[in-house]
Amino acid sequence: MNKKKVHLIFFLGFLFSLNLTSQSDKSVEEDAFFIRSIYDQALTEGQAYDWLMYLTQRIGGRLSGSPQAAAAVEYTRQELLRLELDTVYLQECMVPHWVRGEQERVRIVNSLKLGSLDLNALALGNSVGTGPSGLTAEVVEVKSLAEVDSLGEEVRGKIVFYNRPMDPTQIKTFYAYGGAVDQRGFGPATAAKYGAVAAIVRSMTNRSDDIPHTGATINDPRYPFIPSVAISTNDADLLSELLTEEPVRVYIRTTCKNLPPVKSYNVIGEIKGSEKPEEIILVGGHLDSWDVGTGAHDDGAGCVHAMDVLTVLKKLDYKPKRTIRCVLFMNEENGLVGGTKYKEVSFEKNEYHMAAIESDRGGFTPRGFTCEGDPSIFNKKFSKVLEWLPLLEPYGLNLSTGGSGADISGLKPQKGLLFGFVPDSQRYFDYHHTPTDGLDVVNKRELQLGVASITSLVYLLDKYGI
Amino acid sequence: MNKKKVHLIFFLGFLFSLNLTSQSDKSVEEDAFFIRSIYDQALTEGQAYDWLMYLTQRIGGRLSGSPQAAAAVEYTRQELLRLELDTVYLQECMVPHWVRGEQERVRIVNSLKLGSLDLNALALGNSVGTGPSGLTAEVVEVKSLAEVDSLGEEVRGKIVFYNRPMDPTQIKTFYAYGGAVDQRGFGPATAAKYGAVAAIVRSMTNRSDDIPHTGATINDPRYPFIPSVAISTNDADLLSELLTEEPVRVYIRTTCKNLPPVKSYNVIGEIKGSEKPEEIILVGGHLDSWDVGTGAHDDGAGCVHAMDVLTVLKKLDYKPKRTIRCVLFMNEENGLVGGTKYKEVSFEKNEYHMAAIESDRGGFTPRGFTCEGDPSIFNKKFSKVLEWLPLLEPYGLNLSTGGSGADISGLKPQKGLLFGFVPDSQRYFDYHHTPTDGLDVVNKRELQLGVASITSLVYLLDKYGI
Repeated sequence: MNKKKVHLIFFLGFLFSLNLTSQSDKSVEEDAFFIRSIYDQALTEGQAYDWLMYLTQRIGGRLSGSPQAAAAVEYTRQELLRLELDTVYLQECMVPHWVRGEQERVRIVNSLKLGSLDLNALALGNSVGTGPSGLTAEVVEVKSLAEVDSLGEEVRGKIVFYNRPMDPTQIKTFYAYGGAVDQRGFGPATAAKYGAVAAIVRSMTNRSDDIPHTGATINDPRYPFIPSVAISTNDADLLSELLTEEPVRVYIRTTCKNLPPVKSYNVIGEIKGSEKPEEIILVGGHLDSWDVGTGAHDDGAGCVHAMDVLTVLKKLDYKPKRTIRCVLFMNEENGLVGGTKYKEVSFEKNEYHMAAIESDRGGFTPRGFTCEGDPSIFNKKFSKVLEWLPLLEPYGLNLSTGGSGADISGLKPQKGLLFGFVPDSQRYFDYHHTPTDGLDVVNKRELQLGVASITSLVYLLDKYGI
Repeated sequence: MNKKKVHLIFFLGFLFSLNLTSQSDKSVEEDAFFIRSIYDQALTEGQAYDWLMYLTQRIGGRLSGSPQAAAAVEYTRQELLRLELDTVYLQECMVPHWVRGEQERVRIVNSLKLGSLDLNALALGNSVGTGPSGLTAEVVEVKSLAEVDSLGEEVRGKIVFYNRPMDPTQIKTFYAYGGAVDQRGFGPATAAKYGAVAAIVRSMTNRSDDIPHTGATINDPRYPFIPSVAISTNDADLLSELLTEEPVRVYIRTTCKNLPPVKSYNVIGEIKGSEKPEEIILVGGHLDSWDVGTGAHDDGAGCVHAMDVLTVLKKLDYKPKRTIRCVLFMNEENGLVGGTKYKEVSFEKNEYHMAAIESDRGGFTPRGFTCEGDPSIFNKKFSKVLEWLPLLEPYGLNLSTGGSGADISGLKPQKGLLFGFVPDSQRYFDYHHTPTDGLDVVNKRELQLGVASITSLVYLLDKYGI
């Protein structure tokens, strides 16, 4: 079958399925053809993968405050300039500057059964170091923050080991992550409250492997900041088993530290709307990543998704009625300074984000979008969006209520709709915050389909408004 | 959130969405809970991945007639025996025995521009060898079988090079494959018809890389059998570019050959139905694979999907009303002898396959099922199945009309429904029929979700019939 014929069959079946009323026939047909052309463009001439290659392989991990983060700001600024948009600019913000320091050492010392054994570990972002000589203490395993609260003073002087796995029966892995990540976010501070000297956290993944997953922990200024590390799931299982047999002492050495904040930027490029420029449609991802790995899925993919939305629309010579703004946020991972700054400036300027779409769940095959908004407008506006579903379903896309993204959710009081792009979630936590999150685990077509999906939604939002 | 709470929320939302009528409330709730327990079981205690590890890493590529194919028959027979089914048996069939021989050599000779250059190539299954001294001839590039027909005698004495790419704008890659694979299947025979001495085929993949993809070609007994090879997409692009600049001669050496047929088997295990044992629900995949790679996605995944359906039902202590039969077909890749034999025996025995489900599209994240059947019954029976959609949608599954599978489609005259399991298709043709189709490109959770999806459909088919 040649391409034209296949497309014709596709459209005949598709248009039939829309059960058109004569009034809207023409515009629905137009939309179906334009969305088809968006996919054709993204799948044949998309730039997303090339940009991602540069960000990951030429620049690398882009932790806030690092030289690589600065390089990513300058690279994406230059690339957006090349697109001949109406505006490209940087929005300054002061970001936290945490550095990992030397390779972490986490070692079971003098186990009667195993002797000494090194564990695969990564310090948690924002955590303090042990100092060069490290620390050694007995390990207490817990499954929850509440368990630490009930142990109370019993953890004083000890290392608290959080070992509740992500729930493997969750179909969407983000729910499993959401059900376990409080241990990483608040576990060290909770342990510190009762005098623990350090915290070890089971890595946030469903896999059984030797790869530790880093990520931010949140220090509570009321208590001492204690060293904290993530260990691989295999090592967490080993440590847990050993603890059933004998008391275990662990040596931890981390040299990470929090340096003074550094000047950095959100990178912004936009096409001004021809009819309603004051109605903004934002597409964004976050430019920073963890230092281990090269931040390919998290969130290089989201950034190049957002950038390529602009090129696809330009290449198709689409003139938006509303302002289409691409925002690459800085410091989502350990502070959300970029998102916060963007929001503040936006409110100062009395802006109206009619819609904002964040891509921060990886570059996998698209499944659709989640949507949230201020309760006073949500049902009415979202029901309008749901009318477009027949145009998106042929591409495997669904629309449902749910969270959007960390960088944009603060825009909710502007009473537009906030969308999260939802790709397939099964492999995301295989790579998340690890050295393995690199270009080789991103599939080019899956990435391109993401661009096309987001562009299609932007097109409908722009054409019809909400 | 703990697991129970998450599940409760899931169900409340889910049951609400079903918009229940009081009459069916209880049974729908029962079904929702049972399907949830199928997923829990498959995701926590499924055996599919371990079986696949053995098939791929301990046995390897399982080309029909090979020692590895025989090992796979014996291994899966023994594993099915361990499940304490009602019957486990082998169904004999005589399979073609094609062997690849030594490493293929395909070389551009004496190009003015490039000199000599080796291309990444694999002989096509069923093709004949060149003999030990190889052959050299000028290359003629074409984009279709029709183009060869119109060239006619101009290809005599030459090597025909089929170079029409898979269409990258197809969303479902199987359509792109279907639109290009005639070149591999019928290209060599079409070239032979006009006196060509060999055929080169562009590999069936959307990727640009150096990996050649093998696969079967079909010899036409009316014409001479000619040597034929697939070359990688990068090499196809290179060869094509070179042909725009100068005549190109290529040397081909293959030592593959067709040996006498070998005795082999379909492997069958079943749980007898308690109420309607004569109504069969088949689940199956094909046990053979290509010799390069280890047939992980194609079709080790389909085999272990089918096997694990039985273990999940047994572990949940489900007693089927109808007969659930797992069939691992032999020789799907280069002859379909197993599927043909199975069909013949089934018709001889006057069997009725109320439903058959084949999994032969890889072990990726499930998207649903396609369904086909005899036109005299299809609409009525399929509309019954569509009523179950609300029970499957929460797991990301869809139901649509479409082809089932090569091994089972011959059962259509029995007037049951034939299903094809549909996982995400984006990465399938990255690995298909190549050395890279191994365990490392199969994600354990995605595989387990496939088992759960198929088991859920089997459960509904068994409980309600069609």
